[in-house]
Amino acid sequence: MKNFTLQNPTKIIFGENQIANLKNEIPKNKRILLTYGGGSIKSNNVYKQVMKALKNHKVFEFSGVEPNPKFEQLLEAIPIINKNKIDFLLAVGGGSVIDGTKFIAAAAHFKGDPWEIVANDPSPIDTAMPFGCVLTLPATASEMNCGSVVSKADNSIKQSFGHDLLYPQFSILDPTTTFTLPPKQTANGIIDTFVHVSEQYLTYSVGAKLQDRFAESILLTLIEEAPKVLKNPKDYKARANLMWCATWGLNDFIGVGVPGDWATHLLGHELTCLFGLDHGQAIGVVLLSLLNIKRKQKKEKLLQYAKRIWNINRGTDKEKIDLALKKTRDFFKSLGVKTKLSEYGISKNEVPTLIKQLNQHSRVGLGEHGDIDLKQSEKIYKGCF
Amino acid sequence: MKNFTLQNPTKIIFGENQIANLKNEIPKNKRILLTYGGGSIKSNNVYKQVMKALKNHKVFEFSGVEPNPKFEQLLEAIPIINKNKIDFLLAVGGGSVIDGTKFIAAAAHFKGDPWEIVANDPSPIDTAMPFGCVLTLPATASEMNCGSVVSKADNSIKQSFGHDLLYPQFSILDPTTTFTLPPKQTANGIIDTFVHVSEQYLTYSVGAKLQDRFAESILLTLIEEAPKVLKNPKDYKARANLMWCATWGLNDFIGVGVPGDWATHLLGHELTCLFGLDHGQAIGVVLLSLLNIKRKQKKEKLLQYAKRIWNINRGTDKEKIDLALKKTRDFFKSLGVKTKLSEYGISKNEVPTLIKQLNQHSRVGLGEHGDIDLKQSEKIYKGCF
Repeated sequence: MKNFTLQNPTKIIFGENQIANLKNEIPKNKRILLTYGGGSIKSNNVYKQVMKALKNHKVFEFSGVEPNPKFEQLLEAIPIINKNKIDFLLAVGGGSVIDGTKFIAAAAHFKGDPWEIVANDPSPIDTAMPFGCVLTLPATASEMNCGSVVSKADNSIKQSFGHDLLYPQFSILDPTTTFTLPPKQTANGIIDTFVHVSEQYLTYSVGAKLQDRFAESILLTLIEEAPKVLKNPKDYKARANLMWCATWGLNDFIGVGVPGDWATHLLGHELTCLFGLDHGQAIGVVLLSLLNIKRKQKKEKLLQYAKRIWNINRGTDKEKIDLALKKTRDFFKSLGVKTKLSEYGISKNEVPTLIKQLNQHSRVGLGEHGDIDLKQSEKIYKGCF
Repeated sequence: MKNFTLQNPTKIIFGENQIANLKNEIPKNKRILLTYGGGSIKSNNVYKQVMKALKNHKVFEFSGVEPNPKFEQLLEAIPIINKNKIDFLLAVGGGSVIDGTKFIAAAAHFKGDPWEIVANDPSPIDTAMPFGCVLTLPATASEMNCGSVVSKADNSIKQSFGHDLLYPQFSILDPTTTFTLPPKQTANGIIDTFVHVSEQYLTYSVGAKLQDRFAESILLTLIEEAPKVLKNPKDYKARANLMWCATWGLNDFIGVGVPGDWATHLLGHELTCLFGLDHGQAIGVVLLSLLNIKRKQKKEKLLQYAKRIWNINRGTDKEKIDLALKKTRDFFKSLGVKTKLSEYGISKNEVPTLIKQLNQHSRVGLGEHGDIDLKQSEKIYKGCF
């Protein structure tokens, strides 16, 4: 196990009817900016529950946060914050709304070019507004981590950043808010979680047995519960397990003391920028190709994955890995998700554009060995067809 | 899954040579009271590392904290704190030192009878001194939770308490500090962890699949790594895994959203009070009997345990559970731990005294169903022979 430091201060309030607790989590004197997306929270009753809980608070609104939240649009929140003396942000939605709110929290009182918050590593902030979340779409785990991803409005770049000041103070996770999710969003969330776990688990072994088994715990639970919610979207137990799985996919704990890959995310971001693929769609496709291309380096972990996740005990190592990858693809398909770029109407001729974009964004030296250069990335993209 | 609230703010600093980071974790101007036990930290070099890291801090000492730390002795720290204007506590040791330090942190500025801190539920404190830990004996998980257990000096009672103010600010976990543990302490720590997990896992199912699998992850890792450290006490990887397992046994995460038993602990405490059994020894013996006596109510979980932990797939339900319990006992024995009270020289004639003691401490209505009355406890104690 590698040395590590870990501190995750986010308070999780989990379960049915927990949104009412908002009133206790935000001090009475706070002036709140409620951030949300396209308005699904109005049709699914979440907005009503939030406003009821906050009826004795002063609440302002900033709506229309887009999927893959846009830097320029998020900046529009800052004058609202200043004008109304907002001192607390409340994100109500999925990962995009929470990620966007983290950026607003960081940018609100930042002196200097706000893109530096995103582009510079470490992020140059020394303060952030306090914020909480009401999660309605389990996927990114942004509700229990300090990371965020924002994009430029012209889709020229999708960039992740993070800072210890950007852990939510609290996140409310009510599985019933996910009952009305469109199947596509449910599926994307499951794939996002699956890939988060894979990026931290399917690398090379450092003998961190607990982290490995926690990762496997999440994968096994995803595989077991996914068909249930696709069949019955109001299966509370399954929705609760999937929601908790998504949070665990990237809430720090399975990633401490072990190497991380993250090439799938970086290659996936370019697909989202260039072709508008949903985040879950993009990284699902890339993961399948990347695991295949990097099968030699990842062999030990892929065999462990084959055995413990898919119960594959027979055959040569190659056959076992082939079968594990096939079963992974079949699982993604069973969620109604396409697993090849050609199925999304993207031509192989686009690979050079993707590579050019990767190069522009200095996305080289990727993966747990830092050896994924543009040539390897090209191979991985080509394997997506 | 049951509704739950979860917030664990403790910072974990894990790995070799991490004790040197103490200097960064405690502000320079703090006046520190270093608390420790019988002095093993002096022979194993930990004391030296701590003092070196804190060479620019003002450090006072309070040593001799006993196993099952004693209320009256811990109170002796208070005048030292007042006299020397101590404003930070640093526990260096195992669960007893950390538990004792939590009590000191709570009692230092408490107005009123300090036993109320322990006896009243909720604990009536509204402030606690800040404290950190350097863990040297993985077992209780006190390094990453807000609970503590203290005993009266006359051993009339061993009582747990807890408060959100009693999470350590940080805990440093360096697996090399456990290389020189006596085998008995290593074994006790493993059993303590095993029982912590069992108390949260072997109850009844609420469909919380992730918590179940996390619990199983810990048990499987304990079983896999324990023989390695008994054979080679300086096996870093195995020591690291066991240390991290111990923390996870009771750092809140596997216990949220699921029922808890805790009867084993409460029955075990009486054995420690009356006969001086180590905590791990006491609860190890009780667990084996309790699981047997409560096998009907725990059937679903015991079968899951038989299958997933011990790979038992054949036989009737009774045979499966019998075999799982036998394998559990064999595992405890393989650590060199006795599994019957008679082996500790205790006579069955003592059971009425144990029951009297339980009654005096109002330890009735125990277990995940609240149905373990004195009669059932008697059965469980009798099953320990």
